Amino acid sequence: MVGYSAAVIRRQQFLIRCLGGGYNSRNKNLHYSSLRMQSLMGGGGLTLESDVISILRSITPSLDPSRHKGQAGKIAVVGGCREYTGAPYFSAISALKIGADLSHVFCTKDAAPVIKSYSPELIVHPILEESYSVRDEHKRSTSAKVIAEVDKWMEIFDCLVVGPGLGRDPFLLDCVSEIMKHARQSNVPIVVDGDGLFLVTNCLDLVKDYQLAVLTPNVNEYKRLIQKVLNCEVNYQDGTQQLLSLAKGLGGVTILRKGESDYISNGEEVSAVNMFGSPRRCGGQGDILSGSVAVFLSWARQRVGKGGWSASPTILGCIAGSAILRKAASLAFENKRRSTLTSDIIECLGESLDELSPVSF
Amino acid sequence: MVGYSAAVIRRQQFLIRCLGGGYNSRNKNLHYSSLRMQSLMGGGGLTLESDVISILRSITPSLDPSRHKGQAGKIAVVGGCREYTGAPYFSAISALKIGADLSHVFCTKDAAPVIKSYSPELIVHPILEESYSVRDEHKRSTSAKVIAEVDKWMEIFDCLVVGPGLGRDPFLLDCVSEIMKHARQSNVPIVVDGDGLFLVTNCLDLVKDYQLAVLTPNVNEYKRLIQKVLNCEVNYQDGTQQLLSLAKGLGGVTILRKGESDYISNGEEVSAVNMFGSPRRCGGQGDILSGSVAVFLSWARQRVGKGGWSASPTILGCIAGSAILRKAASLAFENKRRSTLTSDIIECLGESLDELSPVSF
Repeated sequence: MVGYSAAVIRRQQFLIRCLGGGYNSRNKNLHYSSLRMQSLMGGGGLTLESDVISILRSITPSLDPSRHKGQAGKIAVVGGCREYTGAPYFSAISALKIGADLSHVFCTKDAAPVIKSYSPELIVHPILEESYSVRDEHKRSTSAKVIAEVDKWMEIFDCLVVGPGLGRDPFLLDCVSEIMKHARQSNVPIVVDGDGLFLVTNCLDLVKDYQLAVLTPNVNEYKRLIQKVLNCEVNYQDGTQQLLSLAKGLGGVTILRKGESDYISNGEEVSAVNMFGSPRRCGGQGDILSGSVAVFLSWARQRVGKGGWSASPTILGCIAGSAILRKAASLAFENKRRSTLTSDIIECLGESLDELSPVSF
Repeated sequence: MVGYSAAVIRRQQFLIRCLGGGYNSRNKNLHYSSLRMQSLMGGGGLTLESDVISILRSITPSLDPSRHKGQAGKIAVVGGCREYTGAPYFSAISALKIGADLSHVFCTKDAAPVIKSYSPELIVHPILEESYSVRDEHKRSTSAKVIAEVDKWMEIFDCLVVGPGLGRDPFLLDCVSEIMKHARQSNVPIVVDGDGLFLVTNCLDLVKDYQLAVLTPNVNEYKRLIQKVLNCEVNYQDGTQQLLSLAKGLGGVTILRKGESDYISNGEEVSAVNMFGSPRRCGGQGDILSGSVAVFLSWARQRVGKGGWSASPTILGCIAGSAILRKAASLAFENKRRSTLTSDIIECLGESLDELSPVSF
């Protein structure tokens, strides 16, 4: 479906070289001798399986007993409304299972007790409001209150995930737009999925030119983004060039295009992840991805600038997040087959991490 | 209890021949050589065990990695009120465990937080209203709002299950009648169980002549249907002819008559499923059945017209749903014996599927 050119392969090799410059000197467990380029799947898709493993290992922080709570990551999910409660839970619990220390959820008052009941591990803030619960004359003051509540926490977050189970209520989306602006002012990275993509597609300025933003569209969300940004239809012949153009058109925002293979670009290079995976397409897997990317992105960001790192933390976060979801989905599928649900995949995140990036002290 | 005539056996053989014309060429894993007619259980009940397996295998879609979320089925359960929350959960989660990608529940506001808390996998819409929560002067506008909310989603659903835990509140049932009419206008198949059967028995026009409707009555619900449609009592001597007459009297609606053996008819032929099963009769098994039939029916419908298929998708959906519930119940009973609960059976759906219809790529 997506064509690959020699230029893309060169870009991918470039990315790997960038990585190599840094982590070689810092992590002696990496096996460069095993680097090899594998051609997988019929459509010409390329993945570098051992490189993905190298990326995972290099960005995952060591579990140093002298570190304290919070240093391995504090993530916040903005999502959860009257209709949707599963999606923000999946995203937030995945962040914890990947290794974040704290995981917050900012959701509506209706959604909070339910999300809390899924797990005592999450910190759930019942602060968002939907139109039906706010009178017109109170909207301005309610909005200010909501934003002030989130702002109290903003500085501590290493990454925001915006969108899982957010819904499309106009008043709620207006508040979330403001939260995104404040996150941007504070240089907090933002991963946007689900209804967050609906919001962003209708207001591209929310992410335009923000190089700490990651969009993770599925097939339909990608189509709408292409239409809005490039004013054309999806090109299935040269999807890679179009993905580059999309990311460039948004000023260097990182796009993770989900599909049979995941393609990742920030407008300068394209990476593909297509190893592992499961053919089961139950709803909720995108939420695991958004929570995982948030953590890996945070970890990669801590490493950038140290030891000669020059690679983009958003690209690395996306590669690692995609790989870990695919690995966990494949493990869950081995066991549960067609009846695999998203919760089963989440239960395999720990084992997947340990296989691909074993704990080092 | 139910007598069988040579005519019925011929009809059953005819059904199998119809199936054979199609799936033979499409699924090389089928073993026609193993086809055999088995006489099981004392009452003369007939089942074709290997044919049931063949049906299951032929309607279950392959897990093609190029497919995306939603293509394996989107199911909605209409049910769940102040009193009942377990039934819609059982039905909706069973649909996911069978292999649907998305499972929605439309229930009352009271029921929603509880159903959501059972599982983050479900999308639960708190939109139905009961009489006690609506003033008379607001009933018309509330009803319009409820129906508009469901209508927003109707086009995406592959099948509706109406009835699990619905209750019998008159205002709620009026709204559900309208939802059924809208589903019918959109050609969305409807599986009716529980209190949905109470509604339909009192208003036969809701399903009459709709050949994408399936009714799944238990012994008492069947009795009331017979009384209402045929104006007589249940005939235990020639139950098969009466079942045919009932389905014909409803204009080709498919009836799955639950019992020691399950009998299925659309007014043209009768099928029986009586292999596997469990002697445990804990409440909730009918909800597993309705969710399962919904998924298999949707899958069978995708296949009809392709590769020479001519069999009824509702009949195939009922046969497959009945078989998988019986298999899961027998597996659960092996382990849990008298203390088997519906949740235990649901946990065995995946293993049952994998035994009867192993995953193919």
